[in-house]
Amino acid sequence: MSSFEIISKTRVVEEGYDTSSTATQLEAGCYHRISHISDSTKTKMIFGLFVPSTYQKTNNNPIIYWLSGLTCDDTNFAMKAGVKAFETADKHGLAIVMPDTSPRPHGDESVDVPNVDSYDFGIGAGFYVNATQEPYSANYKMYDYVTKELPTLLENDLSLGKNGLKSIMGHSMGGHGSLTIALKEGKDCWKSVSAFAPICNATDCPWGHKAFEGYLGSVEAGKSHDASVLMAALENPIYDDILIDQGTADNFLEGQLKPDAIKKASEKSGQKVTLNMRNGFDHSYYFIAKFIDDHVNFHAKYLS
Amino acid sequence: MSSFEIISKTRVVEEGYDTSSTATQLEAGCYHRISHISDSTKTKMIFGLFVPSTYQKTNNNPIIYWLSGLTCDDTNFAMKAGVKAFETADKHGLAIVMPDTSPRPHGDESVDVPNVDSYDFGIGAGFYVNATQEPYSANYKMYDYVTKELPTLLENDLSLGKNGLKSIMGHSMGGHGSLTIALKEGKDCWKSVSAFAPICNATDCPWGHKAFEGYLGSVEAGKSHDASVLMAALENPIYDDILIDQGTADNFLEGQLKPDAIKKASEKSGQKVTLNMRNGFDHSYYFIAKFIDDHVNFHAKYLS
Repeated sequence: MSSFEIISKTRVVEEGYDTSSTATQLEAGCYHRISHISDSTKTKMIFGLFVPSTYQKTNNNPIIYWLSGLTCDDTNFAMKAGVKAFETADKHGLAIVMPDTSPRPHGDESVDVPNVDSYDFGIGAGFYVNATQEPYSANYKMYDYVTKELPTLLENDLSLGKNGLKSIMGHSMGGHGSLTIALKEGKDCWKSVSAFAPICNATDCPWGHKAFEGYLGSVEAGKSHDASVLMAALENPIYDDILIDQGTADNFLEGQLKPDAIKKASEKSGQKVTLNMRNGFDHSYYFIAKFIDDHVNFHAKYLS
Repeated sequence: MSSFEIISKTRVVEEGYDTSSTATQLEAGCYHRISHISDSTKTKMIFGLFVPSTYQKTNNNPIIYWLSGLTCDDTNFAMKAGVKAFETADKHGLAIVMPDTSPRPHGDESVDVPNVDSYDFGIGAGFYVNATQEPYSANYKMYDYVTKELPTLLENDLSLGKNGLKSIMGHSMGGHGSLTIALKEGKDCWKSVSAFAPICNATDCPWGHKAFEGYLGSVEAGKSHDASVLMAALENPIYDDILIDQGTADNFLEGQLKPDAIKKASEKSGQKVTLNMRNGFDHSYYFIAKFIDDHVNFHAKYLS
């Protein structure tokens, strides 16, 4: 069994309250923050975890992975969109896990996590890749963390998402993460995938350039982590449908996100994408919260 | 017309999008942050304001006041419970205003707002009273701000809540605020009142003692701002019902909040109170978000 610690537990749905549980166990119907020492990042990592009122450790419980965007940690989604997401997930008996976006020292000055003074690189901006470049390669292994280490912990220790009973979604950099991870790993690993305002073509925007040059050494090396490149190269469609919501008043729409690229890739490969352009919505969590129910319901279709 | 500035505007509901509006006007279906110079506090004050998709400046629009608790500013409710509250309010055509909890310098070093290094007194902790004691009496006039200055601005400049078409609710210190303000001012001013985990008997708990001694000079002087004292003294019930939700796992339940006191006051005066004890919920915004729809629906009955 992995070693982890539940650092907080907050009741968020009413049903299924089990007074026999203790602080060392997951509690059905609660949102938890959980810390553990990560082999991937060589740091303490904290993730958020909602388990529904039907959660039982003796079953295999389906789960959705939420990947957050630049500057976020494990708490933003839970605080700003969580209550809607959790209620809807609860109706379907789904858990939601919310990993951090990068390694970070968590206030421990003895932990050296390489960083730069930037909102779009380093801490809070791991980009869901395994860095190959010094000094980042020691800790910035967020691809392994999200696709291997975290699933292993959740499956083996908490009976969440075994046998590929898991889906993935995210926002902005996290939308890039969800699309690229699902397209690379396929349906055996991720039953379904969706995104809010994803970075669709990371090798063709400033955020992606900076991340790929810094973590991987070149933009070219980022092609294997570019959602539109991956989708365009599919020989056969993987998913029945991929759900994407995008606000029309999003400041990053033209310069960074480029949904047109994923539309073109969809046409080229035949991989269906439902791209909803939402009139007047911006890049904020209000946009996510408004449409999060649609995404949870979408994944529930594939996880039930 | 008062002078104020809309400092941000974020779309939160889908319907009613009016592309003709500009940043200097309220936009239907949006959450705004608005700043103005307050006569009450002699400082810049910022409040949050959601206006529904049916908002028209030529009508009189009903509004709910949300009063936040200790440590909060104008943003906490909007970020953490707003999306549910705003969607439900939108269904009823209701606006929601979210004032700050105290004066504050807003980063301007030339503004001298007296403060102490404390989470439960001074900035973030105005307690919804008019301070009479130096040095707080110059700025800490939150009772006047919430009951006079803000309603005047909203009614006269934005057609929100005219003719008493307004209700009030809040959390913790803000629940104390909503109950005391409604009980003091009555139904001509506030059509209905509700609270989450309110400080029910502020003259009989440490938070109230500290606030009343500091702002008003004595606990005795706080009796006119104590919900249970005010309710017990009613000659006749004011409201059909007062809605209160309280979590059973709230760390402040016994030491600070004391819902038993308001129950006793209700029995004494005949003022009906519906007090829902919610199993396992704590003092957090998850608790608020879980039950906020019930409160908005409750106020809608009286504002329609």
